[in-house]
Amino acid sequence: MAIITLTTDFGEKDHFAGAVKGAIYSELSEVKIVDISHAISPFNIPEAAYIIQNAFSSFPKGTIHIIGIDSELTVENKHIALKLDGHYFICANNGIMSMICAEIAPEKIVEINIHDKIQSSFPVLDVFVKVACHIARGGTLEVIGKAITQIKPIKNLHPFLNEENNQIIGSVVYVNNYGNVVTNIKKGFFETTRKGRDFEIYARNHMFKKIHEKYSDIVNFDIPIEKRQDEGKGVVVFNASGYLEIAIYKSNSKTSGSASTLMGLNQMDTITVNFKNE
Amino acid sequence: MAIITLTTDFGEKDHFAGAVKGAIYSELSEVKIVDISHAISPFNIPEAAYIIQNAFSSFPKGTIHIIGIDSELTVENKHIALKLDGHYFICANNGIMSMICAEIAPEKIVEINIHDKIQSSFPVLDVFVKVACHIARGGTLEVIGKAITQIKPIKNLHPFLNEENNQIIGSVVYVNNYGNVVTNIKKGFFETTRKGRDFEIYARNHMFKKIHEKYSDIVNFDIPIEKRQDEGKGVVVFNASGYLEIAIYKSNSKTSGSASTLMGLNQMDTITVNFKNE
Amino acid sequence: MAIITLTTDFGEKDHFAGAVKGAIYSELSEVKIVDISHAISPFNIPEAAYIIQNAFSSFPKGTIHIIGIDSELTVENKHIALKLDGHYFICANNGIMSMICAEIAPEKIVEINIHDKIQSSFPVLDVFVKVACHIARGGTLEVIGKAITQIKPIKNLHPFLNEENNQIIGSVVYVNNYGNVVTNIKKGFFETTRKGRDFEIYARNHMFKKIHEKYSDIVNFDIPIEKRQDEGKGVVVFNASGYLEIAIYKSNSKTSGSASTLMGLNQMDTITVNFKNE
Repeated sequence: MAIITLTTDFGEKDHFAGAVKGAIYSELSEVKIVDISHAISPFNIPEAAYIIQNAFSSFPKGTIHIIGIDSELTVENKHIALKLDGHYFICANNGIMSMICAEIAPEKIVEINIHDKIQSSFPVLDVFVKVACHIARGGTLEVIGKAITQIKPIKNLHPFLNEENNQIIGSVVYVNNYGNVVTNIKKGFFETTRKGRDFEIYARNHMFKKIHEKYSDIVNFDIPIEKRQDEGKGVVVFNASGYLEIAIYKSNSKTSGSASTLMGLNQMDTITVNFKNE
Repeated sequence: MAIITLTTDFGEKDHFAGAVKGAIYSELSEVKIVDISHAISPFNIPEAAYIIQNAFSSFPKGTIHIIGIDSELTVENKHIALKLDGHYFICANNGIMSMICAEIAPEKIVEINIHDKIQSSFPVLDVFVKVACHIARGGTLEVIGKAITQIKPIKNLHPFLNEENNQIIGSVVYVNNYGNVVTNIKKGFFETTRKGRDFEIYARNHMFKKIHEKYSDIVNFDIPIEKRQDEGKGVVVFNASGYLEIAIYKSNSKTSGSASTLMGLNQMDTITVNFKNE
Repeated sequence: MAIITLTTDFGEKDHFAGAVKGAIYSELSEVKIVDISHAISPFNIPEAAYIIQNAFSSFPKGTIHIIGIDSELTVENKHIALKLDGHYFICANNGIMSMICAEIAPEKIVEINIHDKIQSSFPVLDVFVKVACHIARGGTLEVIGKAITQIKPIKNLHPFLNEENNQIIGSVVYVNNYGNVVTNIKKGFFETTRKGRDFEIYARNHMFKKIHEKYSDIVNFDIPIEKRQDEGKGVVVFNASGYLEIAIYKSNSKTSGSASTLMGLNQMDTITVNFKNE
């Protein structure tokens, strides 16, 4: 049974996500529909790119991923469908897929051209669902679009490395539910650049000299639990997706504060790593 | 396999929606449960009416829709089940269905009378689930209720037209996830009243003279993208559901602002359309 | 077909819940996944305990419940799996299960010991999913852990009774979507202690002398609806889960206010019941 996932900025309240699910079941009774997220910030393409990148690969090959962000069709915002690593993606050509495609080359990209049959002001419902069900029934991408070779990039996707190879200038790509701040600096790139050197990570007026294996590594389990003061401490880790993340141990943005609220770090803010030359 | 949808004001956090799904699976193992929304504002009947109206028709005929808003049973708030356009609806008789029923006449309405067997302070779990599973198993409405012919209306559902036929006085029925403001003025009613005349739409101290086909119609694609100033501009469209909607292009209530926050427009606020006599 | 439920503090936005669902479907194509809640306040164990306790028993026996709160593996925070009342639970041994286990003795508890094969900074995805799918395939708990007899308690789970048996000192365990304040005082304990005596319930500077059967019991239906002033009135009930709940009739935390916002009552606050000796 085919799996179709949904990643959108529709929000949890509106009828949009429900209507899309209804339209899928109207075309295909035997299909599994899985919500990845409907809470992407409106029109926030880097957020959507981060979320779909970190969710898709857990799904079985053959899964069809609908991404509904900034999908109104214009001369500059065409609709595309991709096959990549055995997965299918349907979205607007607005940069959402550039984060994934920077790591894994797509097997095929088509620009969807079934619109002459469909006048729509709700393209996810009217166009993306049709394409998804076509793929779920075993249809090929060529039938619903013409092959293209390039997709639109997003800016500031990758961190910069200075000429002396001793400074990475990265940025915040995502602030997660715990208020932890995820940067665009991946573990592989960090270690390749580092070459064993000491380093200092700067985030506004905060500085970190150590990257821990996991969040709880800053806890001193030798101290009795009621005397510990670890909650609320800053900690830097490579998160489960491999990105450098600045966290507060057991944080809560709404009560005690989080890395984002306490350090004043938001999406697009600069994070710098300086490596010490010997 | 039967489909049961859920539209409630339970919120995303509480156990209510989960418990209802568990109760459905306990009665029927082979059924698809689809969340339409659990984020209706508490006890907000016009919001629920708008959302279910715009979601239900995407689902296949035979779908059973549970609506859990203000459903505590009282002498004034009876439980009903309806068949309408091949769909089934189960809810309290508190006005929720009056928006749909104003457009499509119900085939059958019953007042649910299985309560003498059930003492409940959680009627969605104890009563609506029982009724939904009864219908999913092919049971008829007559078995679980007695036929009635009228349902309770909600106020201010329809816009007013003045005697001179040159002014529509409508109101805001819904503010969506993008902060766009949806009115109760439908395209058909607008055009029938308009008869080709020029018009001015008033929303507080804002005035619009044009209704666009889609949100991006206000973008001037001839200007290089980095010089455009379209984001944040007001635009009026008939939305995908056919309602007059006042929007801000690529808005975000939490950051740059939206039609609701920037123009100060909220549910129940008045929107006026003046037509120019020649 | 097995049912796996998810109760976490992942939030609605992040990729975590989606990734977990993908991982489950990658192991088992025929399974139903049901979200109970992803909106538990970060690291809030009493909230999670309350929600899972009130949701689980609606599900069919054999359901597998994954609870992903504070699940990073440490020397003090081991992973456990339980069988209780025919249901399976997989979580960290951090107190989450102590509310349920106080009412129903578990049939079996194991400390999960498959970690030597798995290095993980996302244990719900890497460990809990493996255990859940093992159980769904009919595997036993002994295969994935070693039997233990005790689980970690949480503090302030139960209300106190003074020596004179005329005062219950309880606390707020949960504030629900309507802003109603749920205490840890259950109906059975209240009535056993009360023994027919009059009582006064104190919540900050508010006092209640009556517990109603349902929320709408404070409405006087003899008064015409437009003259009533019941909305916004305080009312005390035993909720559908049997807990003493202080509510505001038809409340909304964001607009008119709720029991929590109007009375200033939050999780952990004290609620006292004084019984009158004759």
